[in-house]
Amino acid sequence: MTKTTQTAVVGVTGYAGAELARLLMHHPHLKGKPPVFAGRVEGKDIARGGVPLAEIHPQLAGNDGSGKLKLEPFSWELLSERGAEVLFLATPHERSREWAPEAIQRGLRVIDLSGAWRLREAANRAVYAFEDEGSESAAATQAQAVYGMPELHRKQIAGARLIANPGCYATSIILPLKPLVAAGLVDLGCGIVADAKSGVSGAGKAPTAKTHFMSAADNLSAYNVFAHRHTGELLEQIGIAADEIVFTPHLLPIPRGILSTIYVRFRKAQTRESVAEVYREFFAASPMVRLYEKALPQIQYSVRTNYADIGFHLDAGGTRAVIVSCLDNLLKGAAGQAVQNMNVMLGWPEAEGLE
Amino acid sequence: MTKTTQTAVVGVTGYAGAELARLLMHHPHLKGKPPVFAGRVEGKDIARGGVPLAEIHPQLAGNDGSGKLKLEPFSWELLSERGAEVLFLATPHERSREWAPEAIQRGLRVIDLSGAWRLREAANRAVYAFEDEGSESAAATQAQAVYGMPELHRKQIAGARLIANPGCYATSIILPLKPLVAAGLVDLGCGIVADAKSGVSGAGKAPTAKTHFMSAADNLSAYNVFAHRHTGELLEQIGIAADEIVFTPHLLPIPRGILSTIYVRFRKAQTRESVAEVYREFFAASPMVRLYEKALPQIQYSVRTNYADIGFHLDAGGTRAVIVSCLDNLLKGAAGQAVQNMNVMLGWPEAEGLE
Amino acid sequence: MTKTTQTAVVGVTGYAGAELARLLMHHPHLKGKPPVFAGRVEGKDIARGGVPLAEIHPQLAGNDGSGKLKLEPFSWELLSERGAEVLFLATPHERSREWAPEAIQRGLRVIDLSGAWRLREAANRAVYAFEDEGSESAAATQAQAVYGMPELHRKQIAGARLIANPGCYATSIILPLKPLVAAGLVDLGCGIVADAKSGVSGAGKAPTAKTHFMSAADNLSAYNVFAHRHTGELLEQIGIAADEIVFTPHLLPIPRGILSTIYVRFRKAQTRESVAEVYREFFAASPMVRLYEKALPQIQYSVRTNYADIGFHLDAGGTRAVIVSCLDNLLKGAAGQAVQNMNVMLGWPEAEGLE
Amino acid sequence: MTKTTQTAVVGVTGYAGAELARLLMHHPHLKGKPPVFAGRVEGKDIARGGVPLAEIHPQLAGNDGSGKLKLEPFSWELLSERGAEVLFLATPHERSREWAPEAIQRGLRVIDLSGAWRLREAANRAVYAFEDEGSESAAATQAQAVYGMPELHRKQIAGARLIANPGCYATSIILPLKPLVAAGLVDLGCGIVADAKSGVSGAGKAPTAKTHFMSAADNLSAYNVFAHRHTGELLEQIGIAADEIVFTPHLLPIPRGILSTIYVRFRKAQTRESVAEVYREFFAASPMVRLYEKALPQIQYSVRTNYADIGFHLDAGGTRAVIVSCLDNLLKGAAGQAVQNMNVMLGWPEAEGLE
Repeated sequence: MTKTTQTAVVGVTGYAGAELARLLMHHPHLKGKPPVFAGRVEGKDIARGGVPLAEIHPQLAGNDGSGKLKLEPFSWELLSERGAEVLFLATPHERSREWAPEAIQRGLRVIDLSGAWRLREAANRAVYAFEDEGSESAAATQAQAVYGMPELHRKQIAGARLIANPGCYATSIILPLKPLVAAGLVDLGCGIVADAKSGVSGAGKAPTAKTHFMSAADNLSAYNVFAHRHTGELLEQIGIAADEIVFTPHLLPIPRGILSTIYVRFRKAQTRESVAEVYREFFAASPMVRLYEKALPQIQYSVRTNYADIGFHLDAGGTRAVIVSCLDNLLKGAAGQAVQNMNVMLGWPEAEGLE
Repeated sequence: MTKTTQTAVVGVTGYAGAELARLLMHHPHLKGKPPVFAGRVEGKDIARGGVPLAEIHPQLAGNDGSGKLKLEPFSWELLSERGAEVLFLATPHERSREWAPEAIQRGLRVIDLSGAWRLREAANRAVYAFEDEGSESAAATQAQAVYGMPELHRKQIAGARLIANPGCYATSIILPLKPLVAAGLVDLGCGIVADAKSGVSGAGKAPTAKTHFMSAADNLSAYNVFAHRHTGELLEQIGIAADEIVFTPHLLPIPRGILSTIYVRFRKAQTRESVAEVYREFFAASPMVRLYEKALPQIQYSVRTNYADIGFHLDAGGTRAVIVSCLDNLLKGAAGQAVQNMNVMLGWPEAEGLE
Repeated sequence: MTKTTQTAVVGVTGYAGAELARLLMHHPHLKGKPPVFAGRVEGKDIARGGVPLAEIHPQLAGNDGSGKLKLEPFSWELLSERGAEVLFLATPHERSREWAPEAIQRGLRVIDLSGAWRLREAANRAVYAFEDEGSESAAATQAQAVYGMPELHRKQIAGARLIANPGCYATSIILPLKPLVAAGLVDLGCGIVADAKSGVSGAGKAPTAKTHFMSAADNLSAYNVFAHRHTGELLEQIGIAADEIVFTPHLLPIPRGILSTIYVRFRKAQTRESVAEVYREFFAASPMVRLYEKALPQIQYSVRTNYADIGFHLDAGGTRAVIVSCLDNLLKGAAGQAVQNMNVMLGWPEAEGLE
Repeated sequence: MTKTTQTAVVGVTGYAGAELARLLMHHPHLKGKPPVFAGRVEGKDIARGGVPLAEIHPQLAGNDGSGKLKLEPFSWELLSERGAEVLFLATPHERSREWAPEAIQRGLRVIDLSGAWRLREAANRAVYAFEDEGSESAAATQAQAVYGMPELHRKQIAGARLIANPGCYATSIILPLKPLVAAGLVDLGCGIVADAKSGVSGAGKAPTAKTHFMSAADNLSAYNVFAHRHTGELLEQIGIAADEIVFTPHLLPIPRGILSTIYVRFRKAQTRESVAEVYREFFAASPMVRLYEKALPQIQYSVRTNYADIGFHLDAGGTRAVIVSCLDNLLKGAAGQAVQNMNVMLGWPEAEGLE
């Protein structure tokens, strides 16, 4: 077995953070090497000795010792003392903009789950209004960042110092579209429609009017129409222009999972088999994608797994397709993909600890 | 106050039937004229004296006497004895194909909630595979049928003997699209996308693997892709060809409500105001449509009302729009629209008993 | 028809407030007399002209004019100008403690939905820690307050100046227990157990960790064990001592509705019929209670009605009973019971506007 | 590492079966020894080659090969050919009554998840109306059966040939009560109340009116009052008489999880610490029980784990307690406990493959 590593996580208090903690605590290559959890808890002073993780996420409590892990006050010294080599940032993007460069400088390899370093084009970054936008240092960091989708960038990830872990919606739309667009099948003139629906955990842990049970339950709503932050990832990674896709997110009354229904027109008529073949080839080396050859994926099938599920139907003439993709927004859309990136980065089997 | 009428309902045991019963029992023009409920209850022999409605739908039980209404065994004689003038058929389409012609012949005015008489074109009806398709009598009945969407066919409904009450998905897609297509705004060359999501009551009362709580809850799934029965209604009522629209239904984990997200391209750039003006004009006389001038409608806002809610956003260039429409599939999508049709047919205020 | 009245509502922004607005807007005796809505909206300055109710509660928007009603800045002058006679306070209890006395002094009849005036015993009030506890003025107001449960206090309500509308849990437990305890059937020595479960609307509109969709959905939790504020109402209204009942509230993953499962032992063996007879007699004149003679009530049957549903089973020996009661916490548990109290207070039919 | 074993599962098509398959497929001691799945699929003829498990449970499909496992037509020869040593029966109790004796005779060790062999007393078995009740052979099999709750019967399980895996409700009530009753703390004269609430998976996979999404969602209902089959397990395992407990099950609108709220009176006043100490001692060697020392457990915390969570509150006088226990009905309440029993039976660490 290849050597282990010392991981550290900042930002373990959110939903993606909890999943990340769970995955790392049970990762076969990290046996006996529990991650260092460092950070802050809203409204609490983290005592010197730390706060048991089980107090923050009761479902992580266990009689196997895992519940005794603690969240400790963050400092660079702490990470250094513990010998951290890989740092996961599950922090707001403002924090990641600040900490990723310093971490790299200190020799850590960084996997950032926020939107801080995903976008190469300044125009696409505008929606984030980063404070350090345009600075030399930010540009230098961005130049080192690799978009952490192993199915597209496996090689670059292996050598990366900074991995920008993709957005959840972006993952659910890029994976099913990239193979078809890259193969030249899609008629971009008419534009692609990506109608995406996400569970409430995607909206974060902060209690708001939108995440109140009474607003979210027994409901469905569209939001950020023509204005969602993940749009830039779609453009850069699929390689299309802004007027070649419309992406509409919706809030589903379920805890987790994303289903994206994607509408494309083909340049020339395809068959079920010709399209399936494009997918099979593209994902031949990708253990975390499941192609549905007959039925369509449903949210339930992918939730609590790290799989991205893809299925599709063609119309009778073979010129239009409806593609359905499903994934768990906290796993393949966040923490699971981050661990997958770590696996690739450290030369471990890509699906290790994810099945 | 205009005169009252004697109504009768066949098929009160389903979800739409329960809503219809509720609406008719409390309709201001039907005070003291409770509807006759006639039909069959699965697996039960309806005794001569009938079965109390409250046994079939406990939520309809009331100390105001409404709970004492009974479901009686269906016969044409029963309807005749009670002096029924308006007959609601909330029956499967096979039954409606058989009964509507006889009811008309017996002088009843019929409002049929099934898909039996909605489609003028044989090609669009093919999906139903009606046994009497092609017969002279079916053709004659079809010729009398009026598509029961008051916002489009108010005048014909007023004089109709047979109203084909629209499908729930169809209502949620035709209402937001018809005004724009009729005004010549929409570029049909690229096709319209209608991504629709419905609550589980739309799947009917029969317990199936699909309607099992475990399959429907915490889930989302697309179904009948390129193959849903309501497609013909879209084509005939909007006035477009089959390759000018893609309509994909999804099953939402909520009891009731439909949200349709509709994607169109315009022939030339529009402004928010120019689009809003088209809607305002089209729906000027339509009390059951609510236009959202700022925010977008959500399913919660329309559930348990008879309103169809419409809102939209344009992209920066004004050439693409995302339109969101919401309604309650059991009310504006079924029983409510049926009552609205009755109101129009009998010359009563269109929204009577629906607010 | 008896004369109408001018109503006013303070606190229309919450869930109970929205239901109250809806009920009053459609109440047959208030036709053409829309209530005055006065108050504050969190984080907004209510402009002189007011804020349309439909902006606060989009589901209240209607093309029938109801959506044009406005929430206006509260002042005693406003109420006086508009000729308000009956004032509903759907306000926090601190506010009700302050405003109810002034309203009474100004000649208004007050129906208070908070816990401010429900408790006669200082010991039971202790849990609220009222600032004015012990003051003469508070004592004088309390002395005028009538506990607003028509099934128990119909006569006193008719003449009341201040009605303390009951708590939702309290209503669901007092109604099924009072008849049996009053009839001397219950062996209090072993204590009664009331295990109650409520939908999330009971936890209020404020977004908190507890009301976050992620905490409430797919979950069930007990809270305030041995410490819920409604306990005092149980003791005073049922007429039992603190150690004669245990009441445990739970948070259900549904928007609305309460089901209470109540366990009693009888002094001597009863039959189904002997118990049913006690209920029938007690509720003979109560149109808003439904007794279930065979099956048990379920939450779904009572939600969106003003009924309190009661059913029960005895054990084989007839000495133990499990009683199940259901109601809608926002209607019979709050706004609906408030309207019922108004009806009784003004001599209108008790169920008017509630069916 | 101790030696591995060959497992076989009959009845993998249900919800507990799916969990059992998942647990066995990933169990550390069964690496490279996938279980034999044998049985029938409703309405399908299982072809000679078998049906891929992933077709029956799409969520079990995986690119790690697990999805390639097949359900094969059951025969004793199949089990024998494959060298099965441990047989899990996730079958209806009628089937288990028939098959368990034969399996034992053929030298298999059996873990039966049904209610077939849980009850020692004929009176308690009456509710099942077993066809072979009273036969010598049934009595002989029953005599060998060990009630499979390791926390109570660890030693007997280790040597058992037939393990009767406990009912889900029974597990959630016996575990919190047994320590207190065994320690003589509980005043049984007044009776114990166990108010239990379960998710819909507990009602089985068959689509029925009760499991229809429309009946279960946004609802809560009590059922089988004074008449649930698990009652006998409570009496025999806790060691109390029928009139010393009332147990009421409820159907929760969630997929999985049970929360039981249990009400006891103590013979003499206790303190939080004295009660906690009883629990700590009783469960000292039990890795799958989590005691909550401060807060109360919630369903969410235990779902998708094999833990039974226990917490409690005392009243001010220390004579009454409300105990809350939570578990996942498909894991600790079924498949997880079955694996726990296998671990104990085979001398493996009790929590192996369960964390």
